[in-house]
Amino acid sequence: MTEFEMIQRYFYRTSPSRCEIVLGNGDDCALIKSAETLALSIDTLVLGTHFTTAMAPYDIGHRALAVNLSDCAAMGARPLAFLLALTLPEFDAAWLEAFAEGLFCQADLFNLPLIGGNTTRGPLSITIQITGEVQDPLKRSAAQAGDDIYVSGVLGAAALKITPRVELGLHLRGLAHAAIDISDGLVQDLSHILDASGFGAKLNSQWIPCYSDLEKALYYGEDYELCFTAAPSARAAVAALSEALSLPLTRIGEITAERAYLMDQKPLAIKGYQHFL
Amino acid sequence: MTEFEMIQRYFYRTSPSRCEIVLGNGDDCALIKSAETLALSIDTLVLGTHFTTAMAPYDIGHRALAVNLSDCAAMGARPLAFLLALTLPEFDAAWLEAFAEGLFCQADLFNLPLIGGNTTRGPLSITIQITGEVQDPLKRSAAQAGDDIYVSGVLGAAALKITPRVELGLHLRGLAHAAIDISDGLVQDLSHILDASGFGAKLNSQWIPCYSDLEKALYYGEDYELCFTAAPSARAAVAALSEALSLPLTRIGEITAERAYLMDQKPLAIKGYQHFL
Repeated sequence: MTEFEMIQRYFYRTSPSRCEIVLGNGDDCALIKSAETLALSIDTLVLGTHFTTAMAPYDIGHRALAVNLSDCAAMGARPLAFLLALTLPEFDAAWLEAFAEGLFCQADLFNLPLIGGNTTRGPLSITIQITGEVQDPLKRSAAQAGDDIYVSGVLGAAALKITPRVELGLHLRGLAHAAIDISDGLVQDLSHILDASGFGAKLNSQWIPCYSDLEKALYYGEDYELCFTAAPSARAAVAALSEALSLPLTRIGEITAERAYLMDQKPLAIKGYQHFL
Repeated sequence: MTEFEMIQRYFYRTSPSRCEIVLGNGDDCALIKSAETLALSIDTLVLGTHFTTAMAPYDIGHRALAVNLSDCAAMGARPLAFLLALTLPEFDAAWLEAFAEGLFCQADLFNLPLIGGNTTRGPLSITIQITGEVQDPLKRSAAQAGDDIYVSGVLGAAALKITPRVELGLHLRGLAHAAIDISDGLVQDLSHILDASGFGAKLNSQWIPCYSDLEKALYYGEDYELCFTAAPSARAAVAALSEALSLPLTRIGEITAERAYLMDQKPLAIKGYQHFL
């Protein structure tokens, strides 16, 4: 089977799209047009690092797109289209079919067309690049001293049946200041907002919504939940949004002018920090 | 070393750029803005498939970006910015330094900023996604019966000191009809134009510019040269462009209404076609 036949059989779809797709799959580049600012993210999942051979290909496809959608959500961006770079050790029809099903199940939820990509042979690895459009992006650097800190959902579920918080991200524009998705654990991801904004934080452990294990809620990633900051004057609007989306948006602390990172008045260690080596 | 420290040390640059970069490295997404149609391409290089351990990391960095720039060139797109997804088996300072040097040497030639990406641990693999902007894209499907067929440069050099033909691609807009880059060999890549346009071609073997071995010129890829079609009325303009760019643009045949693919009146086999499996 050639690369072209494989793309044709498993990855060619005519999907609805929110943006003008001038040219999709099958040329040297895909072409899109948007009057808005575009948000670009790229993420790779590698066998042995992000998943094992025990993981179902459907789930791998689903997750490969979800991690990118979560980046869009954290920016307040509306996803428009994606590219897929797929590296496979061998041609495996059953694997490809299940992978594509998981991928498109997630894509269809967001009317997200696959507009191009690349397949190659090598150790199993999936890289997805997603393009979204955004007005008033939720930047990590936009937190302000005195802001409330919120998280969405309940932490520690590790992506169990949770979809990326794209709708939440879109509704937070103009309401929240800074946002990030919780992919490496709340404590670490919030630290990126603090570093980018130049502030500190005080968290209250009693307020953190978790399934059971607080440690897991603080240091476990892959939740697809968002952590965001907003002015105290926005509390009623955040509560109304929580109700409208049927999604808990829980205040867990505040941004402080002082650079210290505290929970229950004690310094918070950024453990669980992913060292590359 | 953490992922953040690695990005900071090897991949953080402030580069000039042609487009409005609203936000570069260090947030959930990179943000860009352009009034034009955007051209997106993605390509992966994998150890063992596209290069060996014998290849210098400088050359790998150079080539990883070049294959994407060549896709932009073939579309007549002006490259704006790129994302890098880098998978490494281990932290290796000397490798990273040389890789980054090769990458940015190529990027600087085109004023192309690295605006975001992702590093992960796993078998060595490099995926680059490039975004360009384009007016009047050179689509594979735009060839017309009676068009002349041209190639740039001299074939069979396999990318020896050749840079992607981005300038040529930009000048071909409005002059050429269809274009493609010769990454899999002239015969195979031209066949994509024929398939997409629904036409055939007659080539003249005597006209094909090659270093020595015609077979190599026909079936060898990775040349970064362009194959394009243009109306016979454009011959003088193509000749003038060739002179202006100091780059051979050689007429090698014509597009025919009949679907047959011929060289010297004999059917041309699309051998060298890359089978995925």
